[in-house]
Amino acid sequence: MGARGAATRDKLVESSLAMFREDGFEATTMRRIADAAGVSLGNAYYYFASKDDLVHELYLVVQREHRALAIPRLRQGAPLAENLALVLHTGLDVMTPYHRFGGAFVQVALPASSRASPFSLESAQARGLAIDLMRQAADASRPRPASALRERMPMLLWLAYLGITLHWVVDSSPDQARTRRLVDGVAPIVGRAVRLSRLPVARGLVDDVVGLLAPASASTPTAAATPAGASR
Amino acid sequence: MGARGAATRDKLVESSLAMFREDGFEATTMRRIADAAGVSLGNAYYYFASKDDLVHELYLVVQREHRALAIPRLRQGAPLAENLALVLHTGLDVMTPYHRFGGAFVQVALPASSRASPFSLESAQARGLAIDLMRQAADASRPRPASALRERMPMLLWLAYLGITLHWVVDSSPDQARTRRLVDGVAPIVGRAVRLSRLPVARGLVDDVVGLLAPASASTPTAAATPAGASR
Repeated sequence: MGARGAATRDKLVESSLAMFREDGFEATTMRRIADAAGVSLGNAYYYFASKDDLVHELYLVVQREHRALAIPRLRQGAPLAENLALVLHTGLDVMTPYHRFGGAFVQVALPASSRASPFSLESAQARGLAIDLMRQAADASRPRPASALRERMPMLLWLAYLGITLHWVVDSSPDQARTRRLVDGVAPIVGRAVRLSRLPVARGLVDDVVGLLAPASASTPTAAATPAGASR
Repeated sequence: MGARGAATRDKLVESSLAMFREDGFEATTMRRIADAAGVSLGNAYYYFASKDDLVHELYLVVQREHRALAIPRLRQGAPLAENLALVLHTGLDVMTPYHRFGGAFVQVALPASSRASPFSLESAQARGLAIDLMRQAADASRPRPASALRERMPMLLWLAYLGITLHWVVDSSPDQARTRRLVDGVAPIVGRAVRLSRLPVARGLVDDVVGLLAPASASTPTAAATPAGASR
């Protein structure tokens, strides 16, 4: 893509994200996106086959912003509870402008066959960025989890993050305050569970959790965790 | 409601559930339900203000079938892993005929304001039945969890069940085999976690979990777990 093509593409992404934030997903059409970007509809379709393709751009933008906000603030040697709370709260910060859009988005992303699913092949780049952020948070934190669990930690933290995100999407409390409190409650629990995982008494539990995630590599979704992704 | 009214109501419920199973949620309209039941559209609306009201009937039917299937097969004194696997698998058995309908249903039930949400006021009766089934499974099982956790166990198991249900809804594997394997993996993990909860070393973790659920009674959704329900 030449410089002019890249600029056109950027304009389309920018105008679609602004429109998603302000008008929501349903009201945003390819025609309106093209108009706002000053691009013909045919030209817009040359860059993005559908609105769904722009959702992947949204993923990427959100992940990049999330990393830019969270990584510099991770504290080396801090308890996982602290670094995890930071990562989850900054994740919510980045998603907040899109909250209106969240409900419609989950409806688009939930079906097994959806390319917008966080488990889909098409979401691999954004998912990789998100899981790598979790890896950085886990690696920065002390104490470390049981060695058997270490490789799975980024995936486990990412699944926890997806759960928090789902809670946030349906959270009707002002400023999604309830999800903020959930983060403050969940982060210490994860921290304690990780400390507990180091004790011999937790060996069986650790083995079971690792076994559940066994088909996965640390950077791809697991069979157990990804009904949507694995069968295609 | 007289006997004739009750019979009409039953006919409407029956024909709507058959139609949900066979044609899915979208294709099922109040008019088609009324026609299949041999009831005028006006009369149908007298009993059910909308299709959503029939979703609550579906909840109730599913919960009653689930209890009828699971309760007699709970084994007193068995490990929680065994009784929980039984309850989760029988839950999937009962829902299986509605799998096609599942995706559309989650889209209806997910929004914070939806009366079809499992956390809504309107779902209280079905939710109560479901949580009570979890209570029976927990009470039948040995060893018991840490005493601090006992009151919260039915709620925790029910939340796990909702998670499994969400996985099942988006599970595109044949006969949702992947969700069956997830149940087989998760049940022993819950059982082990409960055994671990009894040890002094897990005291802090148990306190954190109980604290997270603190605003809840054992029979109503928690603030943390129910963004949808609690703010209305």
